[in-house]
Amino acid sequence: MIKVVTFGEILLRLSTDGHLRFSQAESFKATYGGGEFNVAVSLANLGINAEFVTRLPKNEMGMCAVKEMRKLNVGHENVLLEGDRIGIYFLETGTGMRASNVVYDRAHSAMATLEKGKFNWKEIFKEASWFHWSGITPALSESASEACLEAIEIAHEMGVFISTDLNYRSKLWKYGKNPTEVMPKMLQYSNIILGDIDTAYFMMGIDTVKPDYNDKESLLSLYDVFFKKFPSLQYMATTLRYSISASHQKIGGILYDGKEIYKSDVEEVFPVVDRVGSGDAFMGGLIYGLINKPLNKQHALNFAVAACCLKHTILGDYNLATKEEIEKLIEGDFSGTVSR
Amino acid sequence: MIKVVTFGEILLRLSTDGHLRFSQAESFKATYGGGEFNVAVSLANLGINAEFVTRLPKNEMGMCAVKEMRKLNVGHENVLLEGDRIGIYFLETGTGMRASNVVYDRAHSAMATLEKGKFNWKEIFKEASWFHWSGITPALSESASEACLEAIEIAHEMGVFISTDLNYRSKLWKYGKNPTEVMPKMLQYSNIILGDIDTAYFMMGIDTVKPDYNDKESLLSLYDVFFKKFPSLQYMATTLRYSISASHQKIGGILYDGKEIYKSDVEEVFPVVDRVGSGDAFMGGLIYGLINKPLNKQHALNFAVAACCLKHTILGDYNLATKEEIEKLIEGDFSGTVSR
Amino acid sequence: MIKVVTFGEILLRLSTDGHLRFSQAESFKATYGGGEFNVAVSLANLGINAEFVTRLPKNEMGMCAVKEMRKLNVGHENVLLEGDRIGIYFLETGTGMRASNVVYDRAHSAMATLEKGKFNWKEIFKEASWFHWSGITPALSESASEACLEAIEIAHEMGVFISTDLNYRSKLWKYGKNPTEVMPKMLQYSNIILGDIDTAYFMMGIDTVKPDYNDKESLLSLYDVFFKKFPSLQYMATTLRYSISASHQKIGGILYDGKEIYKSDVEEVFPVVDRVGSGDAFMGGLIYGLINKPLNKQHALNFAVAACCLKHTILGDYNLATKEEIEKLIEGDFSGTVSR
Amino acid sequence: MIKVVTFGEILLRLSTDGHLRFSQAESFKATYGGGEFNVAVSLANLGINAEFVTRLPKNEMGMCAVKEMRKLNVGHENVLLEGDRIGIYFLETGTGMRASNVVYDRAHSAMATLEKGKFNWKEIFKEASWFHWSGITPALSESASEACLEAIEIAHEMGVFISTDLNYRSKLWKYGKNPTEVMPKMLQYSNIILGDIDTAYFMMGIDTVKPDYNDKESLLSLYDVFFKKFPSLQYMATTLRYSISASHQKIGGILYDGKEIYKSDVEEVFPVVDRVGSGDAFMGGLIYGLINKPLNKQHALNFAVAACCLKHTILGDYNLATKEEIEKLIEGDFSGTVSR
Amino acid sequence: MIKVVTFGEILLRLSTDGHLRFSQAESFKATYGGGEFNVAVSLANLGINAEFVTRLPKNEMGMCAVKEMRKLNVGHENVLLEGDRIGIYFLETGTGMRASNVVYDRAHSAMATLEKGKFNWKEIFKEASWFHWSGITPALSESASEACLEAIEIAHEMGVFISTDLNYRSKLWKYGKNPTEVMPKMLQYSNIILGDIDTAYFMMGIDTVKPDYNDKESLLSLYDVFFKKFPSLQYMATTLRYSISASHQKIGGILYDGKEIYKSDVEEVFPVVDRVGSGDAFMGGLIYGLINKPLNKQHALNFAVAACCLKHTILGDYNLATKEEIEKLIEGDFSGTVSR
Amino acid sequence: MIKVVTFGEILLRLSTDGHLRFSQAESFKATYGGGEFNVAVSLANLGINAEFVTRLPKNEMGMCAVKEMRKLNVGHENVLLEGDRIGIYFLETGTGMRASNVVYDRAHSAMATLEKGKFNWKEIFKEASWFHWSGITPALSESASEACLEAIEIAHEMGVFISTDLNYRSKLWKYGKNPTEVMPKMLQYSNIILGDIDTAYFMMGIDTVKPDYNDKESLLSLYDVFFKKFPSLQYMATTLRYSISASHQKIGGILYDGKEIYKSDVEEVFPVVDRVGSGDAFMGGLIYGLINKPLNKQHALNFAVAACCLKHTILGDYNLATKEEIEKLIEGDFSGTVSR
Repeated sequence: MIKVVTFGEILLRLSTDGHLRFSQAESFKATYGGGEFNVAVSLANLGINAEFVTRLPKNEMGMCAVKEMRKLNVGHENVLLEGDRIGIYFLETGTGMRASNVVYDRAHSAMATLEKGKFNWKEIFKEASWFHWSGITPALSESASEACLEAIEIAHEMGVFISTDLNYRSKLWKYGKNPTEVMPKMLQYSNIILGDIDTAYFMMGIDTVKPDYNDKESLLSLYDVFFKKFPSLQYMATTLRYSISASHQKIGGILYDGKEIYKSDVEEVFPVVDRVGSGDAFMGGLIYGLINKPLNKQHALNFAVAACCLKHTILGDYNLATKEEIEKLIEGDFSGTVSR
Repeated sequence: MIKVVTFGEILLRLSTDGHLRFSQAESFKATYGGGEFNVAVSLANLGINAEFVTRLPKNEMGMCAVKEMRKLNVGHENVLLEGDRIGIYFLETGTGMRASNVVYDRAHSAMATLEKGKFNWKEIFKEASWFHWSGITPALSESASEACLEAIEIAHEMGVFISTDLNYRSKLWKYGKNPTEVMPKMLQYSNIILGDIDTAYFMMGIDTVKPDYNDKESLLSLYDVFFKKFPSLQYMATTLRYSISASHQKIGGILYDGKEIYKSDVEEVFPVVDRVGSGDAFMGGLIYGLINKPLNKQHALNFAVAACCLKHTILGDYNLATKEEIEKLIEGDFSGTVSR
Repeated sequence: MIKVVTFGEILLRLSTDGHLRFSQAESFKATYGGGEFNVAVSLANLGINAEFVTRLPKNEMGMCAVKEMRKLNVGHENVLLEGDRIGIYFLETGTGMRASNVVYDRAHSAMATLEKGKFNWKEIFKEASWFHWSGITPALSESASEACLEAIEIAHEMGVFISTDLNYRSKLWKYGKNPTEVMPKMLQYSNIILGDIDTAYFMMGIDTVKPDYNDKESLLSLYDVFFKKFPSLQYMATTLRYSISASHQKIGGILYDGKEIYKSDVEEVFPVVDRVGSGDAFMGGLIYGLINKPLNKQHALNFAVAACCLKHTILGDYNLATKEEIEKLIEGDFSGTVSR
Repeated sequence: MIKVVTFGEILLRLSTDGHLRFSQAESFKATYGGGEFNVAVSLANLGINAEFVTRLPKNEMGMCAVKEMRKLNVGHENVLLEGDRIGIYFLETGTGMRASNVVYDRAHSAMATLEKGKFNWKEIFKEASWFHWSGITPALSESASEACLEAIEIAHEMGVFISTDLNYRSKLWKYGKNPTEVMPKMLQYSNIILGDIDTAYFMMGIDTVKPDYNDKESLLSLYDVFFKKFPSLQYMATTLRYSISASHQKIGGILYDGKEIYKSDVEEVFPVVDRVGSGDAFMGGLIYGLINKPLNKQHALNFAVAACCLKHTILGDYNLATKEEIEKLIEGDFSGTVSR
Repeated sequence: MIKVVTFGEILLRLSTDGHLRFSQAESFKATYGGGEFNVAVSLANLGINAEFVTRLPKNEMGMCAVKEMRKLNVGHENVLLEGDRIGIYFLETGTGMRASNVVYDRAHSAMATLEKGKFNWKEIFKEASWFHWSGITPALSESASEACLEAIEIAHEMGVFISTDLNYRSKLWKYGKNPTEVMPKMLQYSNIILGDIDTAYFMMGIDTVKPDYNDKESLLSLYDVFFKKFPSLQYMATTLRYSISASHQKIGGILYDGKEIYKSDVEEVFPVVDRVGSGDAFMGGLIYGLINKPLNKQHALNFAVAACCLKHTILGDYNLATKEEIEKLIEGDFSGTVSR
Repeated sequence: MIKVVTFGEILLRLSTDGHLRFSQAESFKATYGGGEFNVAVSLANLGINAEFVTRLPKNEMGMCAVKEMRKLNVGHENVLLEGDRIGIYFLETGTGMRASNVVYDRAHSAMATLEKGKFNWKEIFKEASWFHWSGITPALSESASEACLEAIEIAHEMGVFISTDLNYRSKLWKYGKNPTEVMPKMLQYSNIILGDIDTAYFMMGIDTVKPDYNDKESLLSLYDVFFKKFPSLQYMATTLRYSISASHQKIGGILYDGKEIYKSDVEEVFPVVDRVGSGDAFMGGLIYGLINKPLNKQHALNFAVAACCLKHTILGDYNLATKEEIEKLIEGDFSGTVSR
């Protein structure tokens, strides 16, 4: 059975109920989430053996996060119980023309203060065939970025397939380095990169572009830049997201294997319950699709898009949609008819 | 004053809050509902003398259901307090492209284990002019279907007008009989049948059709099959439901009196709070309309459609829309302007 | 620093959760609000020195309202702690085609029983440059309308700029006088009037009109009637509201300075969280715009419309949108993208 | 079957959750209650045919109160749907050494503005054998006290047994009359009076006493004053309540039939969930006991005390304890063992 | 590492909030629990490798129970996903002199319809050193009792230590057999039995006794009856529970090893949050104690009593007290001082 | 009017509902509190002009804390909006023999990273007559302790009366210094110190004592050590707290003015809603008493004890008891009788 390892930070997510503003909230709903963890949950839900590697404080909050992993059937054998605090993010969920707002309180967290050499990656990757990391970990701190690079290098050496979500967060990257100084080196071993083209260019330090996602020709040449740069690269993927409002999104996707561009339909997502983590649901769906039917790339992309769409209907960071629900969407049934 | 008797099962409904998945729920909202009960509530709310006949266990859960009947002004004088358990259904309310999900836990309930001969139907129908039953009761068990047939036959003998909602539920009918073995006999006394044409054909054992509800001619011939088969039949009605998504429905209706086809406009229903029971709201509205203004069939149909639309905005199984709200819609005012 | 004084009633608002009907509610969310108070909150949030003058009973409910003022940074130095009860309104929030419903329980409140001569308006207006009142206060009782007129006259004498929201409420005006007997006299000192043209005509006792808000020429002549009647008048403004349903509004605005008609774009507002107080958000935004950039009337109008739109996404009576959020909308960004 | 009619006001009760202070509350739990209504609920729960007569506004709040009556199986056929508002009371439930606090907002309610001549008491009392009123109604307004006296006089004429709970509320009696001016005339037809001796003396205008409830001799002479004054009087009863703290009460009772003094044990009630309405539970239990086993006065008293004790464990105004639970207490089983 | 296997039913527990009566509840808190599962949770929390064997339907409710097992770190590898429904119990939590009430709805559940031969016990017990079952499983149905006996016999054969909690539930045992016909045969392999002496005698069919738990001599002879009957028996244990009220318990324990009687102090437990499952917490503590320090029987008993006491402070069926908290109690510190 | 300035950290308090364990919590109640802030709230509630000086991040969480100050009428003019994060503490409220648990997450907070020289203390103290600080601020970090010392020195110079609560927290003091290295220097200007004698000795670096609070003679000599050491000292005070369990406390107090020892009665506090902040309520009550009736020291002490007792009945960090409630307790009325 294929095993996927993801690595990153799991945060305590404190969100206001309904669409209350922070200043109206008397309580916060407490859940756990984080980009790479969310990918692991997606995969575990789809029946893949998924393990999440992270560092968490050995206090009640850290242990609650571990319980969440267990409940969700995500492997946690290599979670390091160390460090001072769990990272927190506060979320005010927007609606209509009012945007959601995220307040990060993750500095000095167990993951942000992680240093390389702490994990026995050779052991961790022994049974693994896939390793997923994202641009959030190198955005936390210099030492976290080094610890992430260490994992990447060992995974590469050991022949583990590497996926990366660029995940640019402007409220992070506060420790004195720019993505351009850190990311290119880390991306050189990626076998699949998920990200907007302009984000990818920005992280490479190439002048920002405003790509036309309907123009296949120009997409080809834009993506090819990465294929030239990174010899390990096998796929580039992009989530197409058109925000009509916080409650109304249009979602599609592109997958490029260095030869052919695959495009999905663009679906209406309305109303939105929670869009946080929908990119991770895309990533999780894509990994699943590529593992499950490696030769049917269009299906893998469609699976990723459908998973991403369904995630918008689910509260919390991670996708709880079932394989059956995702497949129903791929087959074109968006009717939401009651099953009884 | 006209009295309507409805007969069926009332269930404890345990639904997740908001749009939480079952696996996210820490609590269930507890209400009561069931197709035929919901029709009785609609009628009681509209000022009709409505009585609900059922069998309920004599425990706290059964008594809570009785309290709900009282609160809603539905007659409960002939509720039989017997049997082991109240039927339960779990509901996860969908949104957008994620469908609602119903998990039934109603086997062995007081209604499912009901046997004929338990109710004094002659007494019950003494003051009644209308009897409503639905295809759910015969789907519960063989003995429940027999008990229902008994009621139908006595109602028919006593000259009570009989309405039926076909209400096909694929998760029921587990006791070894198919609808075709049970329903035709029960439907022969129906004076009005509500149902999709394909459901009706399926229950008659006639090859399924995919009717074109915009083609009056073909509708006529499709409906006429029933008028030929069932000499008591005076009306066929169909709720037109187009599911764009779980949050977005289009609702209309058709009424056929054996001579003329009446059609309503198709209305946009968006967003949907709760679509469970909206068919019962249609049925309740139709009965009310036919009782209230028997000669104005178009108005009866419009009333049914408006009642059905409004039900979608109301949490729970039954329709709490007022006559004034329904009539405002019939007059074309969908503006939802604050009354102050 | 410019100081704005608003005068009116603050009510205890008891609203059902979600979209529950009154008959389904087991609890009421308790907040505070009222037209003129909501305007003061808008201004305080935008950094204006805003004071609210009212009369409240010296009991726990009155003191909770004062605490709310303090929390929201609205001046309360001249709140009169007298009278028997705080006014209450019950709110059932509609959705889709089901309208919201307001039940007032505000008779005999401290504000409704206010008599003139109670406030030292000369002192109150000493530092003030703007005074705002609305058509709700004269609708409460004869004595309240006299007390309001007293404030208006002193404000006018002292050269304070006067704004008025016509705010017609058909469920008020129960004390034996019609708006036509009361409002014209009170409006004569208004420097800016906000209201629908037909409401304004109705309050003047002129035959109701159904104005065409797209026909600038006819608007000019309709508005000019007021400029002729009221020599102090400098602006007429109207909120354009098209109710598709309780969940779907289209919002725009018109501002006329006696010379030129300014129109904003009409924006889609969907879904609606809470539309109560959105007119007050418009008024607050307009006052802010006219104070902040007095020469840019188009900007003031756009600010009012954007504030009004955003209010629909916020639960409760008053607008908690920030200046930055409003300005993002003015610049055309309705995407609701997560800030992280 | 014996029918009991009770007459008084039903209020909307808005209480804070847990033991939150008013200033901490974001919402109020909404239930309905009132002294005489609570007595009717107690009786209906015990299987007695109980009807509640009151006046309620014909708005949503009034109709919710009627729904509550229906749910609780209390007769409501003679509820008068008139008047402007439902009375409200706000409740902050104390704990330990912090007392509960009640804020009344019941002036101008439908009951407070009731005038005599509105009810057809002859019709109402036709099937009734018992009439219950309390000292709250005459405390509301002069016209309410007159309307109450009218009911008393007709009940007396028709030979209906009359019970009265003195129920002195210092926050009422604001309309210009003292209890001494009103109550003696009303009490002259009472067949049973429930109240503290000092309250009874105070309402009679006799110098207040501090009775020693352990000294039977002095009790005899104190109670006999009333028997001399009121020829109809058959019973005096007193709830013994010792407040150790808001969470800890000791409850007993005394019943005197003009000949013998019956005393119950004094029971520890700890912890207290809600003590509001526990006096009404006593009254309801006493009426039930005297109806059920008229010759066993000690049992009637014990039933009243046990009902009162159990009420303290139940949230809301009225007693939902069952006959079985009450009888278990009378038999001395306070163990609260789980039934499973 | 020692592995403990427990076998029984896990139920969906639907409890009212606070101390609401069933008739007041608008929602039910949904958790999972059951005697033998609760023992497994206790052990897992204390660091023991614990596995729970049961049969659950393969629907959403069954899967939620599995998620709960995972979250709580209880092994679930041998859960059989079959059968029609999960058992349910409704719980109304009492307080003071009002008892809690349990309504079972567990007939026809996956466990109640279990037949022997379904589990591969030889495999399951391969790594196990301890097997725990209780008197609930044989109370469900004849086939469940046979399936339990099968497990007992194989455990015995394989030399697994067997513990039994007698757990008599009068609302079960409805399938036509009495405990005396079933239990003696099952108990013959028990190495430790937990139960009241009178329950044990009742299940053996010996005349009920009212043992004096303070009279060591008589206890010896009462317990010895079992040691004579059951050659495998090594320990008898009894939880001493004195119910002052639903909120106030006194808890102690007795352990007898066939030679010596060990008694713990009796501790005051006040106030009680939730007493359901406190017996299972005792059992879990006792197993832990006997595994952890097999020679210190007094300590094992004290550990059981302290665990049982702490369970009363925790909502839900199973004990979440930590080893540190339990040990603090054993050392005599009941002060509940804030740790900060 | 006397003005009191308090200085310290205000934290976001995230507490579980009811008595749920952290691992059971799905949400956290969000309030704000902190020792010195709580003292300011107590004083503001009692009518004293109280200002709180602190440093808070300029993000939504910081602004919410400011709103809380405004709502509670605590001066916030000198709050410094700087720094990275607000300190957080997680609270699991114990009950019975289960202790409450506090998890601090306050490292790197705006207050912990405060450096001296940031506040204009000369300006702040201009109108102030009293300055309050506690042992929490020097426990946060070296720079915070220096910033606190700066304030103390300026207060002393300007003749402001200085009060100190020793407030030892073993989970703080993590920055490398012991209280003995920091506190003596800071305490030398204190005019009143509140603390346990053993805590005081421990902070002074004198061998810990186990004082007998009933032995006045020995108390005199124990307290006198401080009077000798600190020439400014006018009062020592100690809260007497006996923890029977988390739900049951006994509270008293001692005040010593260098000449005479004042003792209060020891009161039973049962049940406890929330004991966090009860020491701050004592301090606030004591300051109020000494300001209000400076010559009646026994009354000041009794006021402190009563305030402390009442705090235990109130959820949240700070005391919302009114002056009237406190005085009722001082007069010996603990009955918790409903006011109506």
